[in-house]
Amino acid sequence: MPQVSNKGIQMPESPIRKLVPYAEIAKKKGNKVYHLNIGQPDIKTPEVALEAIKNANIEILEYSHSAGFESYRTKLAAYYTKHGLPVETHDIIITTGGSEALLFALGTTLDAGDEVIIPEPFYANYNGFSVASGVKVVPVISTIDEGFALPPIADFEKLITPKTKAILICNPGNPTGYLYTQDEINQLAELVKKHDLFLIADEVYREFTYDGDKHYSVLNVAGIEQNAIMIDSVSKRYSMCGARIGCIVSKNKQVMATAMKFAQARLSPPTYEQIASEAALDTPQSYFDEVITEYKERRDTLITELNKIEGVKVSAPKGAFYCIAKLPVDNADNFAQWLLESFSSNGETVMVAPAAGFYSTPGIGLDEIRIAYVLKKEDLIRSVAILKEALQQYNK
Amino acid sequence: MPQVSNKGIQMPESPIRKLVPYAEIAKKKGNKVYHLNIGQPDIKTPEVALEAIKNANIEILEYSHSAGFESYRTKLAAYYTKHGLPVETHDIIITTGGSEALLFALGTTLDAGDEVIIPEPFYANYNGFSVASGVKVVPVISTIDEGFALPPIADFEKLITPKTKAILICNPGNPTGYLYTQDEINQLAELVKKHDLFLIADEVYREFTYDGDKHYSVLNVAGIEQNAIMIDSVSKRYSMCGARIGCIVSKNKQVMATAMKFAQARLSPPTYEQIASEAALDTPQSYFDEVITEYKERRDTLITELNKIEGVKVSAPKGAFYCIAKLPVDNADNFAQWLLESFSSNGETVMVAPAAGFYSTPGIGLDEIRIAYVLKKEDLIRSVAILKEALQQYNK
Ligand SMILES: Cc1ncc(COP(=O)(O)O)c(C=O)c1O
Ligand SMILES: Cc1ncc(COP(=O)(O)O)c(C=O)c1O
Repeated sequence: MPQVSNKGIQMPESPIRKLVPYAEIAKKKGNKVYHLNIGQPDIKTPEVALEAIKNANIEILEYSHSAGFESYRTKLAAYYTKHGLPVETHDIIITTGGSEALLFALGTTLDAGDEVIIPEPFYANYNGFSVASGVKVVPVISTIDEGFALPPIADFEKLITPKTKAILICNPGNPTGYLYTQDEINQLAELVKKHDLFLIADEVYREFTYDGDKHYSVLNVAGIEQNAIMIDSVSKRYSMCGARIGCIVSKNKQVMATAMKFAQARLSPPTYEQIASEAALDTPQSYFDEVITEYKERRDTLITELNKIEGVKVSAPKGAFYCIAKLPVDNADNFAQWLLESFSSNGETVMVAPAAGFYSTPGIGLDEIRIAYVLKKEDLIRSVAILKEALQQYNK
Repeated sequence: MPQVSNKGIQMPESPIRKLVPYAEIAKKKGNKVYHLNIGQPDIKTPEVALEAIKNANIEILEYSHSAGFESYRTKLAAYYTKHGLPVETHDIIITTGGSEALLFALGTTLDAGDEVIIPEPFYANYNGFSVASGVKVVPVISTIDEGFALPPIADFEKLITPKTKAILICNPGNPTGYLYTQDEINQLAELVKKHDLFLIADEVYREFTYDGDKHYSVLNVAGIEQNAIMIDSVSKRYSMCGARIGCIVSKNKQVMATAMKFAQARLSPPTYEQIASEAALDTPQSYFDEVITEYKERRDTLITELNKIEGVKVSAPKGAFYCIAKLPVDNADNFAQWLLESFSSNGETVMVAPAAGFYSTPGIGLDEIRIAYVLKKEDLIRSVAILKEALQQYNK
C-alpha cells in the first residue's frame, strides 16, 4: 500500500479542529456551546455585495483573468489609495482568499529549506502553508508580559542566516490583537533593508483598529518598496469569509511577475465572489462605523469581564477581534477539552482555542487560550461567567 | 534588493500566455482572431446552477466546511454512484477547482525531490503545480503516430526509481483527446500495484466521450482502491470554469485525512459556487445530450477539415475537446506568433496553442499545435480554412 508523503504527515492540524469531536460530545449531551474559538464573524455581509451577485447576469460562467477582473483591481487600487496606500492596478493580483495570497508570497520568495522569521504566537495556518511550501518557520517569541509588542530587533538579528529570505508579520495580529506602532514597522523596515529580506505583512484585519489607533501598513514605508509584500482579504473586512477572495500587493515587479505565474497555473479566482467583492467596495462608511463600534464594545466587555477573574491575565487587544488570555491552569488544551467533555453550567459551556497551537516553539503558551470576540455582548458576558465557574471547579 | 525564489524563476509560463501580446497586436490591426487556443467552452452554464445562486438566501457569507458542504458531497457521491463509481460522501473533498485538487494530490503523495511519471504531452499546468510542490515530473513519451495511446508499460518501468511515488494521467486527455481503454487502465493498475505507487487520474473531461466509447475511471478498478486518486471539476462538465469548484476523490483513508489537512489550512472552497455546483447536479440529461452532440459534430467537422490540408497530420480525439495536429512547419511556436503578428485572411486570423509547451522533454512536439474545438462549426470551418491559407503562405 503506497504511503502518503512526509510533508503530508507533517502538515499540522488546526489547533481548533482537534476539539471539534469534543464540541460534538457537548452538543450531544444537550449543552449549548458558546464559540469563542472561531474567527467567523457574526456580522452581516454588506447588502451591496450580496445584491451584486443576485443581479449578475451570467450566461457562461467563464474563467476570469488570472490576476482577477481588471475592473476590480482598479477599484481596489483606488480604495487603497484613498486609505493612504500608493497602490496601482498592476500592483495587485486577486487571489482565492488571503490564504492563497500567503501561499503565493511564500512560493515567490522562498525555496525549499529557506527560512521565514515570524513573531509568535501567529496565525496557525502559517505553519500549514510553510510545510506545504517546503519552507521553515523560524519563530521569534513575543510575550503576553510585553502585550505581544514587536520583539527586540536584536532577537530577529540573532535568527537571521543565509537561508533567511523573509519576515512575516500579521498586523493587527491574529491571535494577539496587537497593532504594530509606526516605530515598530520602521524598525522592521530598517532590518529588511539591511539584510535584503522580504517583509510580508498579513494585513487582513487592517480596518479593525480601535481607540483611534491608526493602522500603519508596510506599503506606507518609503524605501522598502522592493521588500514589502502585503496580503489582504475581503473575509473579515466585509464579513465575506465564504467568498474566498483576497489579494497580494507589491510594488516589486519581479515579485508580481512571479506571483502571476503561480496565479496562472491555477487559472483564476472565483467569478461570482469577485463580483461581490468589487461591489463591496461601495459599502457605505456607516457600515464600518457600526461594525467597529460593535467590536470595540465587545472587546471592552470581554476584557473587563476577563479581568474580573482571579488568576487570569489578558492582553489588551488594539486591533482585529482576538485576544490571548493566560489562565490559571497547567495545560489549556486539557482544560479546553474538559470544558466540552465534562463541564456545563446550566446546560451551557464554552469552546476556546488553546494558544499552544499558535506558537511554533514547543512548550510555550501552554496555559494560554485565544478568544475571538465574534459574539454579541450578552453572549460574551455569559461566556466569561461560564469560564470563571469552570476554572473554579477545574482547579478544585 | 531581495530576489525572488529559484522556484519562482522555474515556475513555467503558460504556453498560451506567451502569445497573448501577439493576439493583442492582431486585434489592434483590426483583425478578428478565432481562438482555437483555449479550453474555455462557449456552452451555456445550466440554468439550474445559475438560478440557485440568484435564489440563495445568504445574510452572512460564512466559511463553509473545509471539505465542502456535506449536502454537496453527498449528492456528488450519489452522482458518481449512478455513473458506476463506488464513491461515498467521505471519499470526497471539495476543492477550489480541479487545480487545487491536483495540488492537494501532489502534496499528499510526494515529497520535495520525489518523482511523478506523466505521459506527455500533458496539461501544461502539471508543470507549474509540480514546481510549486517541489516535485519532479518524469515524462514518458506518447506519440501522434500511436494516436497518443498509453506508452508501453516497459517504458514506465524503465523510469521508476525509489523516488517515484505516483503516476499521473489525464483521461480523456488534454491536449490529446485520447481516451484510455479499459485494458490500458488495467495495465496501469497492475503497474502501480506492483510498485506501490499512487495512480492519480485527472478525469475532469470524464463526460466528454464520443462514438459511444465508455470512460473507464481509476475508481472502477478492483484492487487499487488504496492507490487510486481521482481529480474532478465542474469547470468543463457544466461550463462553469469560473466557479472554481472541483474535488479530490479516494478510497484511501490516509490520503483523504492528509488532503484534509491541506484543505483546512486554506479554510474552505467558495460558498456561492458550491451552491451552484450542488444545484448543477440536477442538470437534465438533455443538456448533456445536446452538449455531447454539439462537441461530436465540432470534432468531426474539425478533423475532416484538417485532414484536407496537405502535410497536416491529426490525432483523432475520442474525448475531451482538444486535438493535436502536426503541421508542415519547423517550429509551431514561430508559426503561431506569425499567424497573429503578420498574417491575415480577409481581416481574420487564428490563435493556436503550440504543443511544445505540453511536452516536458525539450525538443519534441515542436511542429505540433493543440486545437480546442470550443467554437461553433462555421467558425471551425473558417478557422481551418485560414490555417490552410496561412500554411501555404508561410511555407512559400
Ligand atoms: C491572520 C489571518 N490571515 C489570513 C487568514 C486567511 O483568510 P482568508 O483566506 O479567508 O482570506 C486569516 C483567517 O482567519 C487570518 O486570521
Ligand atoms: C486536464 C485538466 N485538468 C485540470 C484542469 C483545471 O481545471 P479547473 O481548475 O478549472 O477545475 C484543466 C483546465 O483546463 C484541465 O484541462
